[in-house]
Amino acid sequence: MKKSIAIDMDGVLADVEDQILDWYKEETGLVMSRDDMKGRPEEELFPDRAVLRKILNKPGFFRTLPVMEGAKEAVAKLMEEYEVYVVSAAMEFPLSLFEKREWLSEHFPAISWKNIVFCGDKSIIDTDYLIDDHCKNLDFCKGKPLMFTAFHNVNMDHHERISHWNEVSDLLKRLEGVEV
Amino acid sequence: MKKSIAIDMDGVLADVEDQILDWYKEETGLVMSRDDMKGRPEEELFPDRAVLRKILNKPGFFRTLPVMEGAKEAVAKLMEEYEVYVVSAAMEFPLSLFEKREWLSEHFPAISWKNIVFCGDKSIIDTDYLIDDHCKNLDFCKGKPLMFTAFHNVNMDHHERISHWNEVSDLLKRLEGVEV
Repeated sequence: MKKSIAIDMDGVLADVEDQILDWYKEETGLVMSRDDMKGRPEEELFPDRAVLRKILNKPGFFRTLPVMEGAKEAVAKLMEEYEVYVVSAAMEFPLSLFEKREWLSEHFPAISWKNIVFCGDKSIIDTDYLIDDHCKNLDFCKGKPLMFTAFHNVNMDHHERISHWNEVSDLLKRLEGVEV
Repeated sequence: MKKSIAIDMDGVLADVEDQILDWYKEETGLVMSRDDMKGRPEEELFPDRAVLRKILNKPGFFRTLPVMEGAKEAVAKLMEEYEVYVVSAAMEFPLSLFEKREWLSEHFPAISWKNIVFCGDKSIIDTDYLIDDHCKNLDFCKGKPLMFTAFHNVNMDHHERISHWNEVSDLLKRLEGVEV
């Protein structure tokens, strides 16, 4: 049986950072750059949570996110050797459910609906690996956690790190003791 | 830590049988009763899968389902002792995603978005118990499967059976060796 990998959407398959900054500027007039975000937790960066929630609840936000660089190629390669699941904590934003499903159909059509999971808490998801950017998910997952670099986790070092999708294949080989 | 229970929606929390029969009649003119359905697999009952898919994709189908008798009271009681998750294979019908989320907010407002999972294949869900009506889920679940009676499973006997929500509390006590 193939080993299984759960892959997060926002910040991992979908590149959210520029879109959040652009929509935040439109909403508040405040200009921030990717560099301003680095190493700062979401709570500090967006102290007014209501504004952030308003943005994330706007129609189109999730549907129009760009695909993370290298994700399509890497996922296609992973699917040859692993059972790949997309696991997104979409439940907090009900409007995102349909948009995320449509987004996946457009950008990752090879991933079956059987392998898509929209949830809240990810702690009941049991796969061999979890690729995610949030420690709230990685710290409690049942498999091996792999931390995908995002602005809020650059100063954390308690998980294996993935800085770009082109590193994933070699990292998994190394973790499984296969010579790279 | 509380033990965890995953509970299916269609046929378990939501009573789908009458609604399918009513909408099927409206679509095809064919009249069937609950008794006609008993013991027959879905594939035999609805040989034209396209009609069934059409019904399940119609706006409002999932949003207007009645709550299964006794489910509200039983779930409220379970939540006192267990971590209760709702786990629905909603991904096959993308339009159902928002409707199912709304339905849960209306009928089970105490269940947090953190404890709701919409998926395809349930085999990566790891909870101590799974209450479901489909063997395709029960046969491969990681915890203890509990089969909720539905027309298509009345002749199966390889799992513990729940015929009504008012049996659940005593069944769980028995399984855990607590005197009822």
